[in-house]
Amino acid sequence: MIILLQCSDRVGLVADIARVMAEAGLNIISMREFVNTEEERFYIRIHIDARPDSKEIEQKLLAALPADTQIVVNPTPEKKVIVLVTKEYHCLGDILLRNFFNTFEASVQCVIGNYDDLRPLTEKFDIPYYYISHEGISKEEFESQILEIIAKYEHDYLILAKFMRILSPDFIARYPMKIINIHHSFLPAFVGAKPYRQAYQRGVKLIGATAHFVTNSLDEGPIIAQQIIPVNHSHTISNMVSLGKEIEKSVLAKALQFVFQDRVMVYKNKTIVFEN
Amino acid sequence: MIILLQCSDRVGLVADIARVMAEAGLNIISMREFVNTEEERFYIRIHIDARPDSKEIEQKLLAALPADTQIVVNPTPEKKVIVLVTKEYHCLGDILLRNFFNTFEASVQCVIGNYDDLRPLTEKFDIPYYYISHEGISKEEFESQILEIIAKYEHDYLILAKFMRILSPDFIARYPMKIINIHHSFLPAFVGAKPYRQAYQRGVKLIGATAHFVTNSLDEGPIIAQQIIPVNHSHTISNMVSLGKEIEKSVLAKALQFVFQDRVMVYKNKTIVFEN
Amino acid sequence: MIILLQCSDRVGLVADIARVMAEAGLNIISMREFVNTEEERFYIRIHIDARPDSKEIEQKLLAALPADTQIVVNPTPEKKVIVLVTKEYHCLGDILLRNFFNTFEASVQCVIGNYDDLRPLTEKFDIPYYYISHEGISKEEFESQILEIIAKYEHDYLILAKFMRILSPDFIARYPMKIINIHHSFLPAFVGAKPYRQAYQRGVKLIGATAHFVTNSLDEGPIIAQQIIPVNHSHTISNMVSLGKEIEKSVLAKALQFVFQDRVMVYKNKTIVFEN
Amino acid sequence: MIILLQCSDRVGLVADIARVMAEAGLNIISMREFVNTEEERFYIRIHIDARPDSKEIEQKLLAALPADTQIVVNPTPEKKVIVLVTKEYHCLGDILLRNFFNTFEASVQCVIGNYDDLRPLTEKFDIPYYYISHEGISKEEFESQILEIIAKYEHDYLILAKFMRILSPDFIARYPMKIINIHHSFLPAFVGAKPYRQAYQRGVKLIGATAHFVTNSLDEGPIIAQQIIPVNHSHTISNMVSLGKEIEKSVLAKALQFVFQDRVMVYKNKTIVFEN
Repeated sequence: MIILLQCSDRVGLVADIARVMAEAGLNIISMREFVNTEEERFYIRIHIDARPDSKEIEQKLLAALPADTQIVVNPTPEKKVIVLVTKEYHCLGDILLRNFFNTFEASVQCVIGNYDDLRPLTEKFDIPYYYISHEGISKEEFESQILEIIAKYEHDYLILAKFMRILSPDFIARYPMKIINIHHSFLPAFVGAKPYRQAYQRGVKLIGATAHFVTNSLDEGPIIAQQIIPVNHSHTISNMVSLGKEIEKSVLAKALQFVFQDRVMVYKNKTIVFEN
Repeated sequence: MIILLQCSDRVGLVADIARVMAEAGLNIISMREFVNTEEERFYIRIHIDARPDSKEIEQKLLAALPADTQIVVNPTPEKKVIVLVTKEYHCLGDILLRNFFNTFEASVQCVIGNYDDLRPLTEKFDIPYYYISHEGISKEEFESQILEIIAKYEHDYLILAKFMRILSPDFIARYPMKIINIHHSFLPAFVGAKPYRQAYQRGVKLIGATAHFVTNSLDEGPIIAQQIIPVNHSHTISNMVSLGKEIEKSVLAKALQFVFQDRVMVYKNKTIVFEN
Repeated sequence: MIILLQCSDRVGLVADIARVMAEAGLNIISMREFVNTEEERFYIRIHIDARPDSKEIEQKLLAALPADTQIVVNPTPEKKVIVLVTKEYHCLGDILLRNFFNTFEASVQCVIGNYDDLRPLTEKFDIPYYYISHEGISKEEFESQILEIIAKYEHDYLILAKFMRILSPDFIARYPMKIINIHHSFLPAFVGAKPYRQAYQRGVKLIGATAHFVTNSLDEGPIIAQQIIPVNHSHTISNMVSLGKEIEKSVLAKALQFVFQDRVMVYKNKTIVFEN
Repeated sequence: MIILLQCSDRVGLVADIARVMAEAGLNIISMREFVNTEEERFYIRIHIDARPDSKEIEQKLLAALPADTQIVVNPTPEKKVIVLVTKEYHCLGDILLRNFFNTFEASVQCVIGNYDDLRPLTEKFDIPYYYISHEGISKEEFESQILEIIAKYEHDYLILAKFMRILSPDFIARYPMKIINIHHSFLPAFVGAKPYRQAYQRGVKLIGATAHFVTNSLDEGPIIAQQIIPVNHSHTISNMVSLGKEIEKSVLAKALQFVFQDRVMVYKNKTIVFEN
């Protein structure tokens, strides 16, 4: 069982937590702890080798710890996810493969696309595909149709796997830190549309990709993982797009693994990721 | 001898150049050629195993090639450079070491600092150090004092090795594509001051450094080389500064080597770098 | 059309080649040339914007160049490949996805597995799957069954996408520089079986993967591409296997792209790869 | 104050340690803990914000923990080191610069060279240089002269900064896990002499460097840090040597920082490195 916990820092937190665990007869298999001394904030991830009463442990910890403690005890072991796509197959394909072979550490409930292009791929893997076009309707209407589909399925996270529509603040507000996007640039460089074109025009020597939680500020949510790849003068925009896809799928997969293994906490628009 | 040449592209350029070389009895040791098909621009770097009359070769090539041809025949084999610094030692130290052991592929003429902190280091290596404070005087006056020192020495390039003052357009205009700066971020992310603070606050998972030619637009000149290093939530700003220094000196060294070996051409604010 | 050519080096090769091209009225779009001065060997890759009579160009070039010239004029634009697998899906899955979306730059003819595990995946993409068990039969018999399948299909390359049987010298001799393998270590470290176990036991801080042509010497054929990923004390063998898969599929994809785009030449057990 | 501790794993270790700390009134600033579940071994690094009686804390911890506990309480905050060199300047130069500007986190006591080449550099920084030639004398005699110099200085570690002589088992046995070497290859590939030549001949696409503790088995001691850099067919051995030097100095600096900050433990020829 995993416990994720953050609170303001003070003397003796680890001892207090260890005591609660010991009193409950729980054995800590591994523990990752981090204190941001500048912000006086304490973060801990505890892995224990049992599945005791979550509610009880939570209450004991809350009683022992500072008032501002945020805690998740025993998060869902296998997350359920809904994937949103547009036309590009590389991230979705990677997800469907992992899902099919049970190495995704989550299960894909359905795929929603604002084009119908990725239906054949999705249906090969017996995953429901919903085509909801954004054309000829308002954003509100578009999103309400998406919400209707989402409502049909259990879901812990929404994954924007190269979904190329900007979601409204209202939509995003429903899923705080539950929407994960892959942006095709090394944020905060090249925010917004056509980042590879921007990168080409600026003549950068590295291009990147960024997986992040989605918040109201476009491309400005907490970053989970980033990766880069070298380029040079000989790369056309199209070469960059193609190279970029390799790291987009790779960095999204990595970020999702961190999230699905309950290794990520968020505070003030930044992530704490206990990688291993 | 090296020849660097760029012109608008057309059929038969390589054949025309090869013919001029053959007629002059010159043997091409190696040749790197690149065509930007989108911009219809042709670039070539030719290494020949002789030192013939540069002027004659240049004229023959100009006669055979498009009217917009830009050519450098037989650039100075060992560049002379002047280094400008502020207080940080890591880039200057690396340069002085290489210079002392003749692996710099250039020779340091003198060092100019707007603080006196790096005098002891510089003078250990018997390189003249000039302390020109920017305090209490106008930028114009500050720069005119620098120009006076520069005038005393032969120089092919000015290297801003963590020189933390912004130079005026007038100053920069005197040395087009002759001033090389190391910026402590992965440009175009975090332009301007305190990039590591910006990176920390944004919560990026990679930090970088960029070596570039200096133009009038701050931090927007043609990029020569970039490098990154992973960071995570546990890195303080001070840790990032410290890690960043390692890549700053490394990427500056790499960029300088490209420039000193005449591997870099510039067109429309972008570099073409024939790495090897 | 692409021309790949290698020969012993001498003065004027580029000029001679350029002349043959010009006389044939052919326009060179791009050209990559390399001379290994130590071995006095010349390599060139020429991209021309036409599809003239290959035989004629080949003969003209052979007439103009040294006697030891090896040349390929106009290699098959879209390669046909046969993929051999065992049980692991990650490389095959990546290949099938690219193949399905026409970004593989080759076409998969069939998949041969010494287990039947990957049949369901393969058949989703309407690619024939042949299960040929190695159990209970001699290597000779096993390979002769594989050869029978291969004979049914056109093929330019055989791809060993985590095929875990060692092929006999006789088998390999039939396909010189036509079999591409992905080895799950940074060769030449950890040759042979269970490289991740070896890496774990040695306590390395980086693990790697190597794509190479297969020759008679196990894991010692010419290397096409290599990649690494950092690990530390906290990674179990199983973590390493899992991380390693990410780079195995990535480096195999990269190597295949180089080969399919006719960017690779081989000389004396080493590759020359004109990356871009 | 830092505490480094390892022992066989059992239930409740963290709680026991936390209790000892709490009873002693000590506040844990940060703590990094790792359990190797396969080997059932527990490792912890504790940073506390005080300098209490080391002996007392050590005894209390030993009393509370398994019999096989290995513990270091309050290691020397600033290590003293002796550097051994041959002819190459790049690692020594980097060390001397950091030492001069107090960013080395250790202090260089003296430099011993088996050639006299690096005396001028060393003496610029007012560090004693001892030239002890290995020529014309036995290894025993050579090492006894080195030991004589070492005996004159306090020292926590010996750094082999491109020291190209193999030390005898007798010599090494005097300094268990106290000698740090930089090897110019990605170990275990290319053990022994001339690794860049070996790398060139094998045609690898990455070259590396490895910092490790020295044990009796040549190049087989516990690895502290490794780094790689891409190469291709165009790199001569001499290019590789030159590129390799950049990562040699960088990876040695990184490894030394880990060691000097007491982030490294060793068990069964492998390191546990608590990076941050």
